[in-house]
Amino acid sequence: MIDLYTFTTPNGRKASIMLEEVGLPYNVHKIDITKGEQFTPEFIAINPNSKIPAIVDRESDITVFESGAILIYLAEKTGKLLPTDQKNRFQVLEWLMFQMGGVGPMFGQLNHFKKFAPEKIPYAIDRYEKETLRLYSVLDTQLADKEFICGDYSIADIATYPWVAIYEFQGLTLDNHPNLKRWVETIQQRPAVQKGMKVPS
Amino acid sequence: MIDLYTFTTPNGRKASIMLEEVGLPYNVHKIDITKGEQFTPEFIAINPNSKIPAIVDRESDITVFESGAILIYLAEKTGKLLPTDQKNRFQVLEWLMFQMGGVGPMFGQLNHFKKFAPEKIPYAIDRYEKETLRLYSVLDTQLADKEFICGDYSIADIATYPWVAIYEFQGLTLDNHPNLKRWVETIQQRPAVQKGMKVPS
Repeated sequence: MIDLYTFTTPNGRKASIMLEEVGLPYNVHKIDITKGEQFTPEFIAINPNSKIPAIVDRESDITVFESGAILIYLAEKTGKLLPTDQKNRFQVLEWLMFQMGGVGPMFGQLNHFKKFAPEKIPYAIDRYEKETLRLYSVLDTQLADKEFICGDYSIADIATYPWVAIYEFQGLTLDNHPNLKRWVETIQQRPAVQKGMKVPS
Repeated sequence: MIDLYTFTTPNGRKASIMLEEVGLPYNVHKIDITKGEQFTPEFIAINPNSKIPAIVDRESDITVFESGAILIYLAEKTGKLLPTDQKNRFQVLEWLMFQMGGVGPMFGQLNHFKKFAPEKIPYAIDRYEKETLRLYSVLDTQLADKEFICGDYSIADIATYPWVAIYEFQGLTLDNHPNLKRWVETIQQRPAVQKGMKVPS
């Protein structure tokens, strides 16, 4: 059994979508980051960086934090959604890193400055909106001749989907990125994605 | 032989330090991002996201972009700096992701707002300075009883070092984080690190 520590954020949803996709049973522990529950000594013992998601695999007695590492761990545990041949494997890993280092942090900064910051700072909103749209374009080009980011559905898609899926919340449209729009619509029809996006309830 | 496409940035240095550490021969191709060389069709064919570093391994005919994926690729190619037992391996991968998703993007935003942005925006400088210092503290605590981030020297250290090493450039001090300071001083004495930090010349 796997214990999943998570909350209703794009990074949290990567882990729950993955668990649903690979069909592993898991217990959900809601860590309400709006109440500071990520700063308790119990949670810091799981992730010293005080961020969700994190998992504890009771079978292997292994704890993994950081959504990107969780995706690799669950893919390797189940032999699913990460190719084993070197060329395809590293294509998935590089696009996973593209999400971890680019899409997540930059879309996250746009969320902050556009939706949550106590003052509206045009320079910062413009900076992160431009970068988000640039990343949309990179993904749109990549998806021009592929159903999913690396051809077959993989952890690169699972990592990226919850961040692109919030485009309306971010006041953006995918209408200028038709391949990306088609990709979002394809993924959101997957039953595992629909279930994973509702965790934690 | 490996072709390395890089520039004088912390992300670029991760790749050159790693190549020096594992002792693989490589050709350096300087991509001057201050002149927009990352936007040429030739480079976009290597990395559609127009970012350095990227490598092309002529032996396996595999191209890898994103510094985090390059580190995993070179570690697996040489059997160095990434443990093979599952527990230690995922400790290194989670701290690598911590660098990719946290340290790199957040320290990078501090660079932007403190050093490069055309206007000084106190809110943004304060936001990223606070997050940088918080991440310093997470690392300092992790290093309290370990020589390196995960015990033995690994790709987690190589990923993190070039970003912490710029603390003076960022107008910060490590004096309040003695374990982190000791770690930086230990790593900067490694000959491979000294060589890698000078690439591209």
